[in-house]
Amino acid sequence: MNELLRYFSRELPAINDFLETEADQLNGLVKEVAKHIIGSGGKRIRPMLTLLFARAHGYEKDDYHAIACSLELLHSATLLHDDYLDDAELRRGKEASHLKFGRTETILAGDALLALANEMGARYGNARLSWLLAKGIMETAVGEIEEIQFSKNPELDRERYMEIIIGKTARLIECACRCGAALAGATPEEEDLAGEYGLNLGIAFQLVDDALDYASPTSETGKPEGGDLKEGKVTLPLILLMEDSNEAESRELLDALKTTDLEEERFEAILGRVKEGRYSEKTREEAAMYVEKAKRCLDGFTPGEEVEVLKQAADFVLTRTK
Amino acid sequence: MNELLRYFSRELPAINDFLETEADQLNGLVKEVAKHIIGSGGKRIRPMLTLLFARAHGYEKDDYHAIACSLELLHSATLLHDDYLDDAELRRGKEASHLKFGRTETILAGDALLALANEMGARYGNARLSWLLAKGIMETAVGEIEEIQFSKNPELDRERYMEIIIGKTARLIECACRCGAALAGATPEEEDLAGEYGLNLGIAFQLVDDALDYASPTSETGKPEGGDLKEGKVTLPLILLMEDSNEAESRELLDALKTTDLEEERFEAILGRVKEGRYSEKTREEAAMYVEKAKRCLDGFTPGEEVEVLKQAADFVLTRTK
Repeated sequence: MNELLRYFSRELPAINDFLETEADQLNGLVKEVAKHIIGSGGKRIRPMLTLLFARAHGYEKDDYHAIACSLELLHSATLLHDDYLDDAELRRGKEASHLKFGRTETILAGDALLALANEMGARYGNARLSWLLAKGIMETAVGEIEEIQFSKNPELDRERYMEIIIGKTARLIECACRCGAALAGATPEEEDLAGEYGLNLGIAFQLVDDALDYASPTSETGKPEGGDLKEGKVTLPLILLMEDSNEAESRELLDALKTTDLEEERFEAILGRVKEGRYSEKTREEAAMYVEKAKRCLDGFTPGEEVEVLKQAADFVLTRTK
Repeated sequence: MNELLRYFSRELPAINDFLETEADQLNGLVKEVAKHIIGSGGKRIRPMLTLLFARAHGYEKDDYHAIACSLELLHSATLLHDDYLDDAELRRGKEASHLKFGRTETILAGDALLALANEMGARYGNARLSWLLAKGIMETAVGEIEEIQFSKNPELDRERYMEIIIGKTARLIECACRCGAALAGATPEEEDLAGEYGLNLGIAFQLVDDALDYASPTSETGKPEGGDLKEGKVTLPLILLMEDSNEAESRELLDALKTTDLEEERFEAILGRVKEGRYSEKTREEAAMYVEKAKRCLDGFTPGEEVEVLKQAADFVLTRTK
């Protein structure tokens, strides 16, 4: 992981500075909200992927920040609206924006960040970049809606679950990778490979996120263990448990998921069954398949620092504990 | 006004069909919200302006709907978020979306319409169009924020008021006109003239809107007379009244505006002073100046049906009663 860490520590400061400078230019009513969500410690995986694919395709200029950071801002915009609509109390271990700043400030900050992201992507006068970004914004909006619409359905199946995580997470990561390739003027085939890497990485990323929810102490993720279950959100660990349950167990589980205020005892019992069946680990194993798929997309690339970092990034997605 | 009416009745059906078809493809959770706001009888002034300026610059193709309608959808998106944040009860005389469909549906429908608008503008692979749209979205977001931030400040002055109405209304109308010119491949100078027409028309449009609020029965506008005053929103008629008041009257007016639940008697007294001073009419006179400015932008255009309609549209903005 040496190359990955070295690359990130070399490139992240400029990305963070750029995000900070852009946020500083927002209107006073929403600036603090934007800075709060941007500063709350995201992994900057989207801007880094744009940069990595631009460089991997031979792009040498230093004007990549606007398009790279646009995807981070778009992501932040959806977090603001999602947390508000979910009545979430925490985001990355900090007080959620709508509680700290108010609903008007939070919704408008989401709108402003989305608009800013879009404007940043348009700065290049590159129709392909604008198109990719517009498509990414559209897919993210649809994914956000489908998540809210379906993810709390106790009868969610694996197919719909995959649709949800692709829409809410993987498409934007795909978009980040495609934007890097497009900025460098890659061929459509090269851009497609970058996109496929991103799509698979994004799926793995969300699978691991959903696995961590059942297997990681609060202090690491900033979220309480079993938080998804408590919210009635169905993710792969629960779907796997459901698939392995007999009829009586299924009925009991469905019933528990439909209960809005789940008692501690039943909650712990379900957590226990998820642990016993190793469903969090099995979710990670599923993620590992997607990580392999992502890495295979890099096979045809000329070896170099960026390709090495992209491989290590894929592995890191799998091994991260928060 | 014959040309205007003939042109609108010829072109509006296709624009409305296009909007309907696009809205029909949205996700089920937000589709009805989108159709409700789109179907609530907007004037479609933005799409018509895009079409008119495209044709005025010699554009003959029929693929203008996506870019023209994108601005209508963007406008609808801001209405959804604004009405929710304002706790508005009515929109164009109908029940506001958040009351009819719920807050989650309404906020997400706004996000989806914004994303769709952006995607529609990117369909042409025309970097200039994407840039104009991105700028329009950004300016509208800023305008929306500034309106919420400042328009209920009793001490709002004329300069800030102009900034607000430019941001919340005129910039998007400018954008609609520029997009038409850009679609037709107009020169930068031609696009600037189209934009200047739009900016002035947009200012006039909002001034008349603010005048109507003090001078039009509910049945025509769908909004109760003096609605802005009731909400504590300061617009030009009140600013003019303030400018003409002596110190004691000013104090009384400021005090009334700061009162959240204004008693009927004081409310009627202020309405009476606005009527007596003809401040609604004076606001219209101000609008007339901007209409003249807008029309002068058309001086260099080759005469033709579209230029005639654009002139009549400018006059119509001034004479409309709802």
